Amino acid sequence: MRNPNRRVALVNAAIEVLAREGARGLTFRAVDQEAEVPNGTASNYFASRDDLLRQVGEHVHVRLSPDARRLAEVAAGPPDRSVAVRLLQELLEQRLQVDRTGYLALLELRLEATRRPELQAALTRTISESLERNVRFHLDAGLPGDRTTAVSLYLALSGLVVERLTLPDVLPEAEVAEVIKALVERA
Amino acid sequence: MRNPNRRVALVNAAIEVLAREGARGLTFRAVDQEAEVPNGTASNYFASRDDLLRQVGEHVHVRLSPDARRLAEVAAGPPDRSVAVRLLQELLEQRLQVDRTGYLALLELRLEATRRPELQAALTRTISESLERNVRFHLDAGLPGDRTTAVSLYLALSGLVVERLTLPDVLPEAEVAEVIKALVERA
Repeated sequence: MRNPNRRVALVNAAIEVLAREGARGLTFRAVDQEAEVPNGTASNYFASRDDLLRQVGEHVHVRLSPDARRLAEVAAGPPDRSVAVRLLQELLEQRLQVDRTGYLALLELRLEATRRPELQAALTRTISESLERNVRFHLDAGLPGDRTTAVSLYLALSGLVVERLTLPDVLPEAEVAEVIKALVERA
Repeated sequence: MRNPNRRVALVNAAIEVLAREGARGLTFRAVDQEAEVPNGTASNYFASRDDLLRQVGEHVHVRLSPDARRLAEVAAGPPDRSVAVRLLQELLEQRLQVDRTGYLALLELRLEATRRPELQAALTRTISESLERNVRFHLDAGLPGDRTTAVSLYLALSGLVVERLTLPDVLPEAEVAEVIKALVERA
């Protein structure tokens, strides 16, 4: 009876609601309305609001993960610093332009996790796995630096995304480019 | 008739509500309850919810700004790398332990700013000023690196605070210490 495409559509609708209204605005009814399905649909697909939040946390990582073909290209090419700079710029652009909504929803989830231990545990698993994949890719592709470099780049990128996404005029674009170059070169 | 101490108490109550309930939970009534004052008090002190949000944005920066005496000490001492490492560790600790609530409220404000242009403009001013003070301190105290170094450290610290505040188990404490050392040494 349950349709996997509809489940994904409902999770994507929940991501829209989270980004637009914040965590307190996320109700089954708001998800049904956003997905343009009859009232009561979301409650058929998710056991509870916690279950919905957990599934959003997993799916938002699918949406935000870098393009596999692009990563394969990078892994196959010469692992120099300009490649690392370009990759960071692409990740920043993806979070700021291509899927701004997905990243805003993830920030809402992170804040909601400070109030819900179950969500915090689930999100910790998802993000730890994603960070580990990140670090392994960095090392396997032979990009400059070690594990600490990869973790530092992840954290600096995360700070940069939060800054540019929420208050885009604090750091002008030229300064952002400068920072990305410096992060890689000095790492 | 309006009492400046009461105004600060109301703003601090709003910070508690924001951190605990998120932006959508921030109402005049919730602030009155949190501050344990008669219903209707907050609406006497703030022209609108936007006015309250703006004052929260300003005051949270007063709460989060580093201790002036500590900064004077650093500026007077030899500006070596271990001083920069200690300063970053202290800032991280302040945001994670001393005023966890203040920083969570600031993240809620940042997300709310994506929905309210007026709040975004006010917060952009406050955070730009705070970043400029930060950069100037770094350069004037003779800490290692240039303007780009100071901006990179600010962004990496911000990523680190978001990570440790919302999902403390993603990065173990030992790795955090390693990252802070690497950030300063490689900058």
